[in-house]
Amino acid sequence: MKERAAVLSSRIRLARNLKDTRMPLKMNEEDCKYIRDKVKTIILNNRTDLEFQSLSDISELDREVLAEQRCISKDLIRKYEISSFLTNEKKDLTIMINEEDQIRIQALSEGIDIWEAWTKANEIDDLLDQNLDYAYDSHFGYLTTCPTNTGTGLRASIMVHLPFLTMDNYIEKIASSIGRIGVAIRGLYGEGSESMGAIYQISNQMTTGESEEDIIRKIRAIVTQLIYRESVSRRKMIRNRKTEIEDKIFRAYGILKNSRILDLKESMNELSYLRIGVILELIDLDEKVLNDLAVLTQPANIKKRIGKPSSESDLNIKRAEVFRNILSEQEV
Amino acid sequence: MKERAAVLSSRIRLARNLKDTRMPLKMNEEDCKYIRDKVKTIILNNRTDLEFQSLSDISELDREVLAEQRCISKDLIRKYEISSFLTNEKKDLTIMINEEDQIRIQALSEGIDIWEAWTKANEIDDLLDQNLDYAYDSHFGYLTTCPTNTGTGLRASIMVHLPFLTMDNYIEKIASSIGRIGVAIRGLYGEGSESMGAIYQISNQMTTGESEEDIIRKIRAIVTQLIYRESVSRRKMIRNRKTEIEDKIFRAYGILKNSRILDLKESMNELSYLRIGVILELIDLDEKVLNDLAVLTQPANIKKRIGKPSSESDLNIKRAEVFRNILSEQEV
Repeated sequence: MKERAAVLSSRIRLARNLKDTRMPLKMNEEDCKYIRDKVKTIILNNRTDLEFQSLSDISELDREVLAEQRCISKDLIRKYEISSFLTNEKKDLTIMINEEDQIRIQALSEGIDIWEAWTKANEIDDLLDQNLDYAYDSHFGYLTTCPTNTGTGLRASIMVHLPFLTMDNYIEKIASSIGRIGVAIRGLYGEGSESMGAIYQISNQMTTGESEEDIIRKIRAIVTQLIYRESVSRRKMIRNRKTEIEDKIFRAYGILKNSRILDLKESMNELSYLRIGVILELIDLDEKVLNDLAVLTQPANIKKRIGKPSSESDLNIKRAEVFRNILSEQEV
Repeated sequence: MKERAAVLSSRIRLARNLKDTRMPLKMNEEDCKYIRDKVKTIILNNRTDLEFQSLSDISELDREVLAEQRCISKDLIRKYEISSFLTNEKKDLTIMINEEDQIRIQALSEGIDIWEAWTKANEIDDLLDQNLDYAYDSHFGYLTTCPTNTGTGLRASIMVHLPFLTMDNYIEKIASSIGRIGVAIRGLYGEGSESMGAIYQISNQMTTGESEEDIIRKIRAIVTQLIYRESVSRRKMIRNRKTEIEDKIFRAYGILKNSRILDLKESMNELSYLRIGVILELIDLDEKVLNDLAVLTQPANIKKRIGKPSSESDLNIKRAEVFRNILSEQEV
């Protein structure tokens, strides 16, 4: 049993603003440029692994592709005239400039290894802190545009695949119980996004009253517990509905490998069953292939592949082709 | 384009009774034995390729298997205490005894070659005619239990696969137009059976007023015309919905090759798409494999494979296994 396959990735995000500047909602173009140049210079002078890009220099489609890869946020795209970012080749460390806050540091890591992401984000935070004056209040902590981020400015989130708890109709119940201790469960692309393919983000809602380490430890502990509960649900359902679940897994494989038209929702749901197949060791696929498929078959990634204006129906045909080609390359 | 794949098989059936005997509805056990022994003796004395079996010596399940193979009729099974049959190894020539009529000769042939079936049935008919006195009236022709068979006693039927006319909702219209000239279109297992997987039997409703050759010629001509109309529908739909149809074909292949639970109706429908794939040369499968699959995955055939009392759900699991195994053996 590949328990680990249940955790897709971990993410740390830090929100920062500078002292003695206007807060983002009141900033003019000059202010934005000031922040941008400050941050850009410090990072580029100290880190050779990060490259700078203005969002206005990137096509609308490429911005969406970056968001689907989780390199940048949708909020950064919304402000593309003034926003920019620095990222590394692997795109697992990004400093966003002029997002909802002046500075947003984001680090991703594979699986449940959120401490690695924390270390990566922390390094950037320390570097900027040494060279800039953060807007920091000894009582409130880091000051942010939205009061829900004030304090640590930290959002720790772990992306998990919970198909059995979903089939068991347990997610609502979990959401309300972890909500009471300040933890949220949301769909794939964060706030307001629908859950597809039983993939969820578990993250802290409160950024104050606890240290960064305590917040991260709590999220990690809850995820560990969710994975345990998922495995209980899994065992129960496999005991009672083994063949039915195997049927869904292998049908999903057959459909993803053969179909000629696949819309996003169906593909995400079938991919969820394929992932179950990998967890149960019924299907021999690398987790990386699953994770790649989940990103490469998102709308903007598909549009990018087609390379010209394309209809919804073109996307569905291309999406089926991508699934077919990638799965055909694998020995399953 | 494998046009021929649209025609599955052809069948000739002749209904005969003996002169100076009670007609079947009034026959007692002695009468039945008399008919049986007469027919059995003549056939066995003259034909080494045919073997005799009493239905009472065959298990209920094996009788159903024989019916699914179209070797014997459901009517013969209904009267299993008194009925019997002679058949060859290939089961494409059968003489049923004490069915609805005293004697029913049935011959099957592959594809549209109904004249071959006619020749095979005719030989048996001639053989019996030389050795027995048929109930024959110079005005009415051969006398039968049901007046709808009186005359030639002939039912000529051709089994066709008409998926595009079915998708195009044309079958009702065709049924009413060919009905007016005395030709019926029915589901896979004849009268009253539902059409599954777009498979139909085209057969004459009238057995009188025309010679045997005219009846057969008419059925064959109508089938030729239906195949033509099917190809027109096919071209039209492929022009307008090519990718959608290819999607259904390859999904069907993916599902049949991978699923773990398959009910009869779904499997017949997916098999229909697989057959379309073969016709369009998108899927490289022998027609024989398709025809075998259609029979081997019928309920009694599946029960026979399981070899012990089994639930509907057991059947669906075994059916999926049969599809998987047979399709995995093929290079597609």
